Amino acid sequence: MSEPTGAAGDRDRIQSIERGFAVLLAFDADDPRPTSSDVAAATGLSRPAVRRILLTLQHLGYVEPVGNRWRLTPRVLSLGQRFTATHSIVEDARPYLTELAEKTDESASMAVLDGNDAVYVARVSVRRIMRIEISPGTRVPATATALGRVLLAWAEEETIEQVLGAGLPACAPATVTDPKVLRGILRDVHARGWALSVGELDPELVAVAAPVRDHSGAVVAAIASATSTGRSTPERLVETALPHVLAAAERVSRDLGRPPDARFGAAREGFF
Amino acid sequence: MSEPTGAAGDRDRIQSIERGFAVLLAFDADDPRPTSSDVAAATGLSRPAVRRILLTLQHLGYVEPVGNRWRLTPRVLSLGQRFTATHSIVEDARPYLTELAEKTDESASMAVLDGNDAVYVARVSVRRIMRIEISPGTRVPATATALGRVLLAWAEEETIEQVLGAGLPACAPATVTDPKVLRGILRDVHARGWALSVGELDPELVAVAAPVRDHSGAVVAAIASATSTGRSTPERLVETALPHVLAAAERVSRDLGRPPDARFGAAREGFF
Repeated sequence: MSEPTGAAGDRDRIQSIERGFAVLLAFDADDPRPTSSDVAAATGLSRPAVRRILLTLQHLGYVEPVGNRWRLTPRVLSLGQRFTATHSIVEDARPYLTELAEKTDESASMAVLDGNDAVYVARVSVRRIMRIEISPGTRVPATATALGRVLLAWAEEETIEQVLGAGLPACAPATVTDPKVLRGILRDVHARGWALSVGELDPELVAVAAPVRDHSGAVVAAIASATSTGRSTPERLVETALPHVLAAAERVSRDLGRPPDARFGAAREGFF
Repeated sequence: MSEPTGAAGDRDRIQSIERGFAVLLAFDADDPRPTSSDVAAATGLSRPAVRRILLTLQHLGYVEPVGNRWRLTPRVLSLGQRFTATHSIVEDARPYLTELAEKTDESASMAVLDGNDAVYVARVSVRRIMRIEISPGTRVPATATALGRVLLAWAEEETIEQVLGAGLPACAPATVTDPKVLRGILRDVHARGWALSVGELDPELVAVAAPVRDHSGAVVAAIASATSTGRSTPERLVETALPHVLAAAERVSRDLGRPPDARFGAAREGFF
């Protein structure tokens, strides 16, 4: 959770709005159709308060009753779509991600950093059978993924400290959980220009990722190609997929106004 | 916008929550990074009210300041993702949509009805160059699209009346805008088991769609295959893509518990 900055003290915030979102977030995969009592239990709010909030959200079209239970409506999707509509990088990147997926015959993804997580903003999947199905908005710990490590490697020191300070979730037996070790990895990623993760988010998942930079050179997103240990090896992924990942990231960066002298070729030689 | 039902009168609703969402919706493609004054103008709220709401949304992590402007954060995407996480039909359908896209070499989509719109909940695109880029959450008028006509053809009379009563937006020169003509089309769609739209959402877009039914037989979504007039003809789409669309819709329906005796073959013979 981001902290309030500047004048955004408690006094300035509107509790009802916070409660409204808390109720919306009470709908999840574990409880897709909660009763109002379930929502009260999940949020810590009183049942009368939950009832009024649900009626308000129903009026706005975000939830609907099903018997004595509630469910989210597709209008909630439209909220998420606002991010895509207002961040042209997602649409800009889609053709390059599609090309990356075609060339590698593997899924291609783009993510941005939000708090301690890498959040997928676009994904092109070419395989029908994938153990991990990921849709835009899916969050994964930044520390355990190639996408997240790229985003952290160029983040401000303050951000890195905050994310590492929150602890490194052990998603799989191979996940790096020592902040000092991860510090070293981030330095390597920064020097090399790309990141690799092997079995750290999921024991069978291997991914390589590279940074997308805007006109100022700031890293604003990461692009990855991912496969499973059953289909490829880390060595093969670096050899075959990485050049396409670097090229896709470079092309999106160029669309964002990154000067063409910052060529992806340089990254492979360590000049990035 | 849906109307409040039952006890959801004005008195029960919480104005701050409604205002919170109004501010979030002020961010759109036309104004991706508004100032607080822009938001005040777009919502009709006072500047001090907008400021407090923006600070609240910032505390929740949904917006962030950029200079004297504001933008949405990727956390907004996570709100949309809640729909996907709580409606397993989206994940269930993805492999079938991918197969449909592969078999037809065209984009494959699934949509549900929300108010007067068909809302895309999943989409698999195989073409890089498409005039219309559509991401989940995108809304299109139900009356002007094959997806929407399938959803309307099996909707309750009350819903049909409401949608047709709201007027038929003329998205393109060929769009059917006469409610009586559309009534006839919906009857045909219902009898035939699938819908076709030619140049009605966009002059160059052609699509065929079929219904997805749940265990009770209720139509809960529609699946479509779409192409452009430059790539195919309506006749060819019906001949080559429609059987795959019907098969995909049938397979998702079966996953939802629809009895196997309701075979997609029957739809083509008019027994659906």
